[in-house]
Amino acid sequence: MTRFRVAVQIIPRRGLLDPQGKTVRDALVTLGFGSVSDVHVGRHMVVETDAKDAPAAEASVRAMCERLLANPVTEDFTIAGVVAA
Amino acid sequence: MTRFRVAVQIIPRRGLLDPQGKTVRDALVTLGFGSVSDVHVGRHMVVETDAKDAPAAEASVRAMCERLLANPVTEDFTIAGVVAA
Repeated sequence: MTRFRVAVQIIPRRGLLDPQGKTVRDALVTLGFGSVSDVHVGRHMVVETDAKDAPAAEASVRAMCERLLANPVTEDFTIAGVVAA
Repeated sequence: MTRFRVAVQIIPRRGLLDPQGKTVRDALVTLGFGSVSDVHVGRHMVVETDAKDAPAAEASVRAMCERLLANPVTEDFTIAGVVAA
């Protein structure tokens, strides 16, 4: 078993309301960053897990996303990277 | 001016308490993912902004992180990617 560090990005689905992103966009414009047209806010998670190889680690984190980490109705997730820790 | 989509990852500094990550780790273990040793939870943001080129877009988002998006005391940020939108 090797320890892997798997990065996951979870973002609100395109087309759904993203009130947090809108609030950040408005705050940036107020601060003087007038060229910002849109902001999306999601979560970035790094999971350290033991697995026999990188594909097994990725499959395991994918199952975690489906069962707990991401909301399947409103969010999409992508596995951004798998590296040995 | 071109529109760029800049991805930023903001994570709690290593060594600082990450109570949200600890809670997620415990929940994953309870769900049966016993091989998970640690979880870090941060934010993933995608900023759409107009700039003359990619380095200018990156510099602009770096300034936004320093002024608003990241807490300089407790968080580190990395610009994960700059693509034309």
